[in-house]
Amino acid sequence: RINSDRLWDSIMEMAKIGPGIAGGNNRQTVTDEDGEGRHLFKRWCDAAGLEMGVDEMGTMFARREGTDPSLPPVYVGSHLDTQPTGGKYDGVLGVLGGLEVVRSLNDLGIKTKHPIVVTNWTNEEGSRFAPAMMASGVFAGVLDQADVYGHVDKQGKKFGEELERIGWKGPEKVGDRKIHAFFELHIEQGPILEDEDIDIGVVTHGQGLKWLQVTLTGKEAHTGSTPMPKRRNAGLGMARVIELVHEIAMDYQPDAVGAVGHMEVYPNSRNIIAGRTVFTVDIRSPEKEVLDAMDGRIREGIDTICDALDIRYEIEQVGAFDPVTFDAGCVKAIRDAADRLGYSHRNIVSGAGHDACWINRVAPTAMVMCPCVDGLSHNEAEEITKEWASAGADVLFHAVVETAVI
Amino acid sequence: RINSDRLWDSIMEMAKIGPGIAGGNNRQTVTDEDGEGRHLFKRWCDAAGLEMGVDEMGTMFARREGTDPSLPPVYVGSHLDTQPTGGKYDGVLGVLGGLEVVRSLNDLGIKTKHPIVVTNWTNEEGSRFAPAMMASGVFAGVLDQADVYGHVDKQGKKFGEELERIGWKGPEKVGDRKIHAFFELHIEQGPILEDEDIDIGVVTHGQGLKWLQVTLTGKEAHTGSTPMPKRRNAGLGMARVIELVHEIAMDYQPDAVGAVGHMEVYPNSRNIIAGRTVFTVDIRSPEKEVLDAMDGRIREGIDTICDALDIRYEIEQVGAFDPVTFDAGCVKAIRDAADRLGYSHRNIVSGAGHDACWINRVAPTAMVMCPCVDGLSHNEAEEITKEWASAGADVLFHAVVETAVI
Ligand SMILES: NC(=O)NCCC(=O)O
Ligand SMILES: NC(=O)NCCC(=O)O
Repeated sequence: RINSDRLWDSIMEMAKIGPGIAGGNNRQTVTDEDGEGRHLFKRWCDAAGLEMGVDEMGTMFARREGTDPSLPPVYVGSHLDTQPTGGKYDGVLGVLGGLEVVRSLNDLGIKTKHPIVVTNWTNEEGSRFAPAMMASGVFAGVLDQADVYGHVDKQGKKFGEELERIGWKGPEKVGDRKIHAFFELHIEQGPILEDEDIDIGVVTHGQGLKWLQVTLTGKEAHTGSTPMPKRRNAGLGMARVIELVHEIAMDYQPDAVGAVGHMEVYPNSRNIIAGRTVFTVDIRSPEKEVLDAMDGRIREGIDTICDALDIRYEIEQVGAFDPVTFDAGCVKAIRDAADRLGYSHRNIVSGAGHDACWINRVAPTAMVMCPCVDGLSHNEAEEITKEWASAGADVLFHAVVETAVI
Repeated sequence: RINSDRLWDSIMEMAKIGPGIAGGNNRQTVTDEDGEGRHLFKRWCDAAGLEMGVDEMGTMFARREGTDPSLPPVYVGSHLDTQPTGGKYDGVLGVLGGLEVVRSLNDLGIKTKHPIVVTNWTNEEGSRFAPAMMASGVFAGVLDQADVYGHVDKQGKKFGEELERIGWKGPEKVGDRKIHAFFELHIEQGPILEDEDIDIGVVTHGQGLKWLQVTLTGKEAHTGSTPMPKRRNAGLGMARVIELVHEIAMDYQPDAVGAVGHMEVYPNSRNIIAGRTVFTVDIRSPEKEVLDAMDGRIREGIDTICDALDIRYEIEQVGAFDPVTFDAGCVKAIRDAADRLGYSHRNIVSGAGHDACWINRVAPTAMVMCPCVDGLSHNEAEEITKEWASAGADVLFHAVVETAVI
């Protein structure tokens, strides 16, 4: 078993960097706070005798040598970046859980044949820069590095320049590594495990996602003196699209979800009818056909809404991944580990996207989940217990060691 | 007749201060640009031999002495502040039209019995700091000075501190002046005069307004892993309120208008269900009963919407004025002036709020309007012709001189 006190202390230590305003964290990708978090992680890796590599996307790879260095390593990790109002565990548990795996191996003096690499993937959250799981997407060859370098945040800052500014653009070409297997531990971010009082989620599948960034262009005009029939109200258009997305998601739920969390209004004045709105539709489903059907209905609906309001629209897909089926062998390694350790478990479909979803395309991959209080995540109040964290890390430990072979 | 070239040149000169990004202006109240615009106006007033007074709300009063200085002055003016994406004429035409009245009197060597005071009211627009017509509202005793000093913009800056910072908080107690009559020239900001090819709008009434700032509180949660029935989506709530306001306004139009132009979303991340939204409902009608009925239906509707979505709401009225009936004598002075000058005219109800609406409560008041292209205002593309501007200023000139008595 891993050292649950040490794991918990490290999580709490990391949470001091980029504190939020309500007990959580604001350590968004490629900010100064992200840089500071990376330095702390590196110091811990150094102390554990790991060798650090950093690639051109800023992803950190901390290697514990195997008895056969020619074998491809077993990778284990997640991400240290957070939402603007994020929790202390989303991503962090997976990275520090991976670190705890090698710390425990060190304690026990265990050597594995395959090297083990603890990984911190850059920009998993996708809040500051779309899309989510950016660095793992480039690693898997699904996203283009030059393209994502040019993606801008709300202040117009470019991802690539910010990565360089914080000093974490590494020398290594992205995607050049051979991966024997990848394991990611993560909090569930949903209510199932807690509701059913189960220790471990064995993640067999991941939902697919589409992010559609919609720009509506109407005409700025006075809210008081512009007759109702003359208005070309981009704010009203946005409101109707938000309702549309909700209705479509309700039609398909529980096999789908949908919402708009990001909205910009121009010029955003009390007495000006909005001339332009920009917002991102987030739709997800474990079924590709459902996702495509939702996408089609949303595009059709936007066309109808804009026609009625005499406004123009543009739709840009700024993120997308297909539903994922994780590797049967890796899934079995996790299930067997939970059985062996005596933890209750069930199969589960991940509602969120994860770096594991991309890495699964280039290497055998699976995920372990632990419960979180009220299923709440992407909220500073995100919470887990020390017991849940250590059960997850125990299972991760066994699955990794099993796969890396003693 | 006034000097239309000089009036136009002055408008264009003022438009150089706080230029927008699309040919208009961003000279929002109590910004550095507002300060610069005030200095330019003061230089012009000095050159015209006027004596400047400034009150504690920053309102500027430039006095041309009358042959009987003991008589209460005739006031004429409007505002120099603009929307964040405002036009060159909204407000500016009325202030510089007033200045042109005294410049023309100087040219012609005409003395009036009553003094004439050209006025620039602070924060008419209400975009940076609610409510609109702030300084004239304090002058008329409808708003409380200490209260509005504490109103904050989106950055949390206080109105009173910003007024002091730009150096335009004057020594004069607000509202201490006796006003014989007040005249305001303004662009229509609506399409009626242009559509009917009429030179002059004789403003008999002004619509009433309510601004309701609504705060919805739901729960931040993950857009992917939170089941649809568990969501408490403050963004969806906002969308429904926007649609509600539109539907109610459509029920009452053409006797009412309604829209939401200002919206804030927290934390505004693509993959976080909004936990909080803040937005301002703007409803208007020339009938007080209609305005009250709309207000009631909106409050009821918000209650129902929030109940269904399990979100909390707060509603704060951040601006309000009743429909206005302007002074019959002043209205007649304007109509007579238009007749005498041979301009076509019609009675009109102002769709927007104006400083004249507040001053009408403490002194005989009326407004002159000139057309604007496409009825477009609160848009950088706001446009008028030089001929329209000078016809309006001619009528203003005659009405003011008639009232100030030669
Ligand atoms: N796990 C997680 O919250 N990932 C962020 C990407 C997503 O929105 O699913
Ligand atoms: N005239 C004008 O645009 N005033 C601003 C206040 C309002 O919204 O009516």
